[in-house]
Amino acid sequence: MSSVNKPGGNYLPVIIHGGIAYVSGQLPRRGEDLLYAGKVGAGVDIESAQEAAALCADLCISAINQATGGEDKIVQVLQLVGYIASAPGFTRQSQVMNGASDRLIERLGDRGRHTRTSVGVAELPRGAPVELNMMAAVRA
Amino acid sequence: MSSVNKPGGNYLPVIIHGGIAYVSGQLPRRGEDLLYAGKVGAGVDIESAQEAAALCADLCISAINQATGGEDKIVQVLQLVGYIASAPGFTRQSQVMNGASDRLIERLGDRGRHTRTSVGVAELPRGAPVELNMMAAVRA
Amino acid sequence: MSSVNKPGGNYLPVIIHGGIAYVSGQLPRRGEDLLYAGKVGAGVDIESAQEAAALCADLCISAINQATGGEDKIVQVLQLVGYIASAPGFTRQSQVMNGASDRLIERLGDRGRHTRTSVGVAELPRGAPVELNMMAAVRA
Repeated sequence: MSSVNKPGGNYLPVIIHGGIAYVSGQLPRRGEDLLYAGKVGAGVDIESAQEAAALCADLCISAINQATGGEDKIVQVLQLVGYIASAPGFTRQSQVMNGASDRLIERLGDRGRHTRTSVGVAELPRGAPVELNMMAAVRA
Repeated sequence: MSSVNKPGGNYLPVIIHGGIAYVSGQLPRRGEDLLYAGKVGAGVDIESAQEAAALCADLCISAINQATGGEDKIVQVLQLVGYIASAPGFTRQSQVMNGASDRLIERLGDRGRHTRTSVGVAELPRGAPVELNMMAAVRA
Repeated sequence: MSSVNKPGGNYLPVIIHGGIAYVSGQLPRRGEDLLYAGKVGAGVDIESAQEAAALCADLCISAINQATGGEDKIVQVLQLVGYIASAPGFTRQSQVMNGASDRLIERLGDRGRHTRTSVGVAELPRGAPVELNMMAAVRA
């Protein structure tokens, strides 16, 4: 279980509108401490990157929960976009993202099933190896 | 016409919620075979990348069709995000993405018109040159 | 204040569906002139990148306004995705994106508050340092 991290800039962690929760990109941190740093395929191995992705998924859920008042308000995770800071030639972004996907299904069951896009990017804020963006259907 | 590819991880190809189809990122593959590989501007030329983008667009449509039961259920393509694996200095991502855009309009007419974001990324899953993410309005 | 730029390809600047405005990725240009070019952390410094991000935010708002008929139709900015063309080792994407976030809040007040994802990418169309994608709730 994770507490909600303060945004790293002038924005909100979550907005709920029309039954959809829009969640800001989550980095693998606890409070101000980034728990993983570096490029996947270089300083960060796949297993660590999967843990980082799972932590980002936890943080997305925590952010939604704080806005809605409880995890039972999540109707369905809809969309996940995972950005993986990738060393040159690293092409196993999907495998990394399974860390996030497995965690969501483990925690939320079928409500945690989602669509997903995994991409490999050059750099992420603060040198994080993974950043996760989520949209989910929620009820009042 | 393309059949629907199995997701490359623990996620769903499409979720429909509130009249919106969220489609997972599509790579230019048929079944398990990636049909295009490499960086655009290096191993992959613009024309091939446009074909790859068009195939990804076809695969998005096929995924929606399988979920809804038919192409006439697509009300409007809303948003396309195209990730182009780019060689250093390659900045013609928009030209590549016209391959996807033209295909959507060719197949769906005005219902295929969409908003679009094209970005150049470092690496894509399995070494694909193009990955496409789509949201579309659909009716029951 | 910015006028609306013509799309750089076969797509629409904005689609409104179900009370949501989907805005195409905006580059920091006026008409056909790209006002900023290069990688942040190399040819482009943070202050210039923040100005570029603010211009992209203005262009998103202008595009929505043209589609709706007026800025008072914007109910709430929902989601911002900022792509920052990043020199190797540049990890202050969030700081760059505050240029866009501050501008939105300055112009729209609480209606301009939003969720945000900032990523560092390899290359952007035409060599732009920043590209911005937006979703916003609007009313008829």
